Amino acid sequence: MTTNNTLGRIFQLTTYGESHGPGIGGIVDGCPAGVPLTEEAIQTELDLRKPGTGSASTARSEADQVQLLSGVFEGLTTGAPIGFSIPNSDQRPRDYDALKKAYRPGHADYTYAAKFGLRDHRGGGRSSARETACRVAGGAVAKQFLSGQGVSATAYTRKLGGIEAEVISPERAAGLPFFAPDPSVVELWEKKLQSVRKAGDSIGGIVEIQVHGVPAGLGEPVFDKLDARLAQALMSVGAVKAVEIGAGFEAAELTGSRNNDPILKKGFSRNNAGGILGGISSGQAIVLRAAVKPIPSISMPQRSVDHKGHEVTMQIEGRHDVSAIPRIVPVLKAMTLLVLADMWLLHTSRAGA
Amino acid sequence: MTTNNTLGRIFQLTTYGESHGPGIGGIVDGCPAGVPLTEEAIQTELDLRKPGTGSASTARSEADQVQLLSGVFEGLTTGAPIGFSIPNSDQRPRDYDALKKAYRPGHADYTYAAKFGLRDHRGGGRSSARETACRVAGGAVAKQFLSGQGVSATAYTRKLGGIEAEVISPERAAGLPFFAPDPSVVELWEKKLQSVRKAGDSIGGIVEIQVHGVPAGLGEPVFDKLDARLAQALMSVGAVKAVEIGAGFEAAELTGSRNNDPILKKGFSRNNAGGILGGISSGQAIVLRAAVKPIPSISMPQRSVDHKGHEVTMQIEGRHDVSAIPRIVPVLKAMTLLVLADMWLLHTSRAGA
Amino acid sequence: MTTNNTLGRIFQLTTYGESHGPGIGGIVDGCPAGVPLTEEAIQTELDLRKPGTGSASTARSEADQVQLLSGVFEGLTTGAPIGFSIPNSDQRPRDYDALKKAYRPGHADYTYAAKFGLRDHRGGGRSSARETACRVAGGAVAKQFLSGQGVSATAYTRKLGGIEAEVISPERAAGLPFFAPDPSVVELWEKKLQSVRKAGDSIGGIVEIQVHGVPAGLGEPVFDKLDARLAQALMSVGAVKAVEIGAGFEAAELTGSRNNDPILKKGFSRNNAGGILGGISSGQAIVLRAAVKPIPSISMPQRSVDHKGHEVTMQIEGRHDVSAIPRIVPVLKAMTLLVLADMWLLHTSRAGA
Amino acid sequence: MTTNNTLGRIFQLTTYGESHGPGIGGIVDGCPAGVPLTEEAIQTELDLRKPGTGSASTARSEADQVQLLSGVFEGLTTGAPIGFSIPNSDQRPRDYDALKKAYRPGHADYTYAAKFGLRDHRGGGRSSARETACRVAGGAVAKQFLSGQGVSATAYTRKLGGIEAEVISPERAAGLPFFAPDPSVVELWEKKLQSVRKAGDSIGGIVEIQVHGVPAGLGEPVFDKLDARLAQALMSVGAVKAVEIGAGFEAAELTGSRNNDPILKKGFSRNNAGGILGGISSGQAIVLRAAVKPIPSISMPQRSVDHKGHEVTMQIEGRHDVSAIPRIVPVLKAMTLLVLADMWLLHTSRAGA
Repeated sequence: MTTNNTLGRIFQLTTYGESHGPGIGGIVDGCPAGVPLTEEAIQTELDLRKPGTGSASTARSEADQVQLLSGVFEGLTTGAPIGFSIPNSDQRPRDYDALKKAYRPGHADYTYAAKFGLRDHRGGGRSSARETACRVAGGAVAKQFLSGQGVSATAYTRKLGGIEAEVISPERAAGLPFFAPDPSVVELWEKKLQSVRKAGDSIGGIVEIQVHGVPAGLGEPVFDKLDARLAQALMSVGAVKAVEIGAGFEAAELTGSRNNDPILKKGFSRNNAGGILGGISSGQAIVLRAAVKPIPSISMPQRSVDHKGHEVTMQIEGRHDVSAIPRIVPVLKAMTLLVLADMWLLHTSRAGA
Repeated sequence: MTTNNTLGRIFQLTTYGESHGPGIGGIVDGCPAGVPLTEEAIQTELDLRKPGTGSASTARSEADQVQLLSGVFEGLTTGAPIGFSIPNSDQRPRDYDALKKAYRPGHADYTYAAKFGLRDHRGGGRSSARETACRVAGGAVAKQFLSGQGVSATAYTRKLGGIEAEVISPERAAGLPFFAPDPSVVELWEKKLQSVRKAGDSIGGIVEIQVHGVPAGLGEPVFDKLDARLAQALMSVGAVKAVEIGAGFEAAELTGSRNNDPILKKGFSRNNAGGILGGISSGQAIVLRAAVKPIPSISMPQRSVDHKGHEVTMQIEGRHDVSAIPRIVPVLKAMTLLVLADMWLLHTSRAGA
Repeated sequence: MTTNNTLGRIFQLTTYGESHGPGIGGIVDGCPAGVPLTEEAIQTELDLRKPGTGSASTARSEADQVQLLSGVFEGLTTGAPIGFSIPNSDQRPRDYDALKKAYRPGHADYTYAAKFGLRDHRGGGRSSARETACRVAGGAVAKQFLSGQGVSATAYTRKLGGIEAEVISPERAAGLPFFAPDPSVVELWEKKLQSVRKAGDSIGGIVEIQVHGVPAGLGEPVFDKLDARLAQALMSVGAVKAVEIGAGFEAAELTGSRNNDPILKKGFSRNNAGGILGGISSGQAIVLRAAVKPIPSISMPQRSVDHKGHEVTMQIEGRHDVSAIPRIVPVLKAMTLLVLADMWLLHTSRAGA
Repeated sequence: MTTNNTLGRIFQLTTYGESHGPGIGGIVDGCPAGVPLTEEAIQTELDLRKPGTGSASTARSEADQVQLLSGVFEGLTTGAPIGFSIPNSDQRPRDYDALKKAYRPGHADYTYAAKFGLRDHRGGGRSSARETACRVAGGAVAKQFLSGQGVSATAYTRKLGGIEAEVISPERAAGLPFFAPDPSVVELWEKKLQSVRKAGDSIGGIVEIQVHGVPAGLGEPVFDKLDARLAQALMSVGAVKAVEIGAGFEAAELTGSRNNDPILKKGFSRNNAGGILGGISSGQAIVLRAAVKPIPSISMPQRSVDHKGHEVTMQIEGRHDVSAIPRIVPVLKAMTLLVLADMWLLHTSRAGA
């Protein structure tokens, strides 16, 4: 029953907050009692999202510090809603005064104004990527629950600015710049980013997520299929324009005999299905990818209109990230975990008889 | 609040039914009163899904006849739930006896058994494509509502078995075999299908949907964004393994300056966004694509296991479609319309103040 | 996530149908697989709702015959949605022509017209008590699930037309006229009804439901508490104007020392709480009551207005029930069971960790 | 789609927090953009709930100060989620050490332990009445929205400890002790409370809410009827054991000719329906009542068991309120407003065609 700012049916995350107010935060509801949870466990995940020293990120210091407000007693969840907050440490509304009247191309400025009739122009308001910090915090709670069930997820960058990485050691990606699944690609990506930054432009890429340890049975046909829910979750992240499961678009090119995963005594002999058949997990690794568009904020001049419809040439000042990658990587992993925690509990509820 | 077999928060479709019982059907709830609706309007959409004379389909005659059961009075919806049923005209459980014990590769047999502990093996039960007829019926109601708002959708095949079509005349696709957007591709696709059928194999492809007339403002950030909801809806259809909006995966390759759609006085000057910015419709055409995997039922021998885990070589007998295309095309259009009707009403509810 | 015509979050009932169309029906979704279910099990409950020979009911023959359409295979539920339909055997729209323009006092005619802008005047359309047959059918499925868990419910009439019954043998009520919990009250109620019928008037009463075998733990604080959900469910039945749990209104008169149920080693020593503490079942019997208003359709002349606002004196012709009791009794039991099945599965989902 | 800690389908309140942590708070989502909202508007409502000088309340100073965290820009709601927090000023876990092992009769101690397997014993955790402060804060947002639509609500005490008040001037109740609707009853109630307090006991009562300015049309049959939703909302408040609409239980005693509200040209000539017919508002004043049980924390010795099942005699120390009235009065008003705001927006969404 995902609604505007609430994700999930049983394991639910509700979030609030803009980049330019006292802070952001959220509530995780429906988490079973007895799950070990500390502020540190959440902070560790949040730290993966913080701007690094890599060329993709701005120098804007943004030290997200989470505070756990409820739902935990003596180190364990109680079954009560888990409130958390992340204060905004750096509020600089003045940077955004130029954006007050003109709509940035590729941004949500125009559509938010059209939808709500008024607009909080400071840093994009609710459409700011800052909102995703709460997704990571929520995902950290899901991770705590799922790791108790033997489920673990890794996320890494498959492609950046058109340069593809081989998936050599995905489990080490979290320790490398760009969440690279292959150490040798880091330098190429670094160079690519520097040249794009110099040009005042931006780039996108592809993020892949693998989840291991998911048993067969998760997913609720026919509308709340596991792949359907994962697609919604990833597509709900700002910069994502496409989602694929397993072979994805490539499956459209294969014949059935090549695409079907044979079943042997020891299990499936390949994984074109990405671990999901008929919308239900098969027990194989769940594999999915998201296409991330280039960040729309670029310093090159762009054509747009202001709120009165007059054409303007706008140049977005200030330092901006050159790519949503790598900061989006832990966000996409968090979304995957949030869906899996929810589908886990939904499947558990099926075992009532 | 999509749940297992209910799609949507305000404009809701709930469905039931397997391929081998008395019939299938559903309930459309939340449709505003005063929408013109007849059985014929639903039947017209259902007929688009029926097996044609094209090579992609089986000869299995399946004349879906919808019956409207409630919610309409003197040709107009009353605001009450709209019940409909589609009897199963052709019940041949004997065809499926061979499938009783073995799991067909690429099918949901294995995962349904794992999830529910028992399985209705007749024709795939709930995982059968037959279920999608109810989606088309529900989509027909959504279409009636939306056309009164000036919204119209077209769906067509972009690619079949690796052969891409140009989008010459999408508005005429509904009248051509395969919902082809270009008459000249039909013969190529026909030949491709014949050779695949001869080989006992199957193929997939890519379906594209365009929606015109959607005003700016539909979509509920941050989790119920319009693109997120569309992704869930399309991915919930059996054979779909990937969904993209606008430029989709191609956006991941572009720079920001190439991907951002400039805004001019007369509107956006291109549509890489696919009509959605920040999860909210922008007023441009909404463009999305789904990757359809090859049908898993093939007559070539395949390796699998039975319900006791013993390896078997299975050969699926009987006539089966060679591709989910074209029959999936009206299904994907219906899903798009169902989401848009729901997002329309949700957006309307925002205008309460 | 109860919505307009869908009740429940996991164990869900969605219904459709008016008194004057082809029929009514519904879909039970989320029922676990493996629950024994037959048409007979549903029919048995439906038969409890049929008009008896008692004075409270009309002679209008209404033999509700349920047809099970899906979700059951070889006598067990499969986890798929359970569709059912109940044809309308007796469609007499002509009886209602007089009601076309005037609003019956105490009925929903006026508010449906105000809400939907148009109105299906035939027999009250969706506001007809006929709709409750689908609640009973859904409740029968819930009963099947819950009886496998050791839960059983009884419902009976506590009061009719101001005459209170003692609760002597509630378990035998289903076999007595009026679902009387004491055989000796039947004659008094019968006489009361005859005199009311003769006067062309109608009466209401109080129905009580007891549920045994519910373990401690069901209910989801703070908004989806068990008592909150039961209150919604009962109050959603047409004629119900009040709901109370345990001591109910009497609790408002007691002191804490009298109202608190002491806890002994062998359990609670009384049950003012009605089996629910803090919105969660305590393991005691769940006891609740609903106040049923007199049927608004009376043959005495009444003052009202027509759809143009002109005052009219209207006299409702035809035979009408004198009281919603006893036919409402199995409906209220069904609603209780539907809520308990849902809360059971929700609680089960909590046990994920 | 009310779930555990989220109320409503469009206008939604999600809350978190226990009496003994950093604080409590919540998120209001789905409020339309453009509604005037300030911290003061929320604080004013919260102040109605604070312990007064009346005899019903403890001396425990509890100055709830709300902080508005998001969703408001330049004094107007933006359509984004509205986060708020209320710090816990007075954390005294030591007071509750005695409660660590024994279950207080009439409290949720026993059922929370049974449900969640573990228990935050400090002040009742989530079952503490402190949680209701967030309901009042959420209700204040609903009030802001609804007052722009011409809707206003008053809530007052009808009965306290068995002593009934006449409803002389309900609109002045907010300025009188106990939210008394008649100044002359205050002294009687005061005396009653003093004697109960002296006895170490507690009392309950009846609260009535009136809402004016609600147009005909709110409510979503058949399960989300307006009265059904109001019943759930009021019953979800800790101490409430019964809810009635309009004539309520009295309707069960009347004949139809007495209970039906005649409709005249100028409107209904009485209001036994409490402003709701067929689950839809009729345009009359909405009138509902809740029965409030006596506070279970009393200083008289009580029999109970500890978590090992051993019988104990427990005496609850510290100062406790003698009645949930008057502090529950603004809570019940808030719940009513939250439901009405949601039903308003749901009804608006119906007007899409």
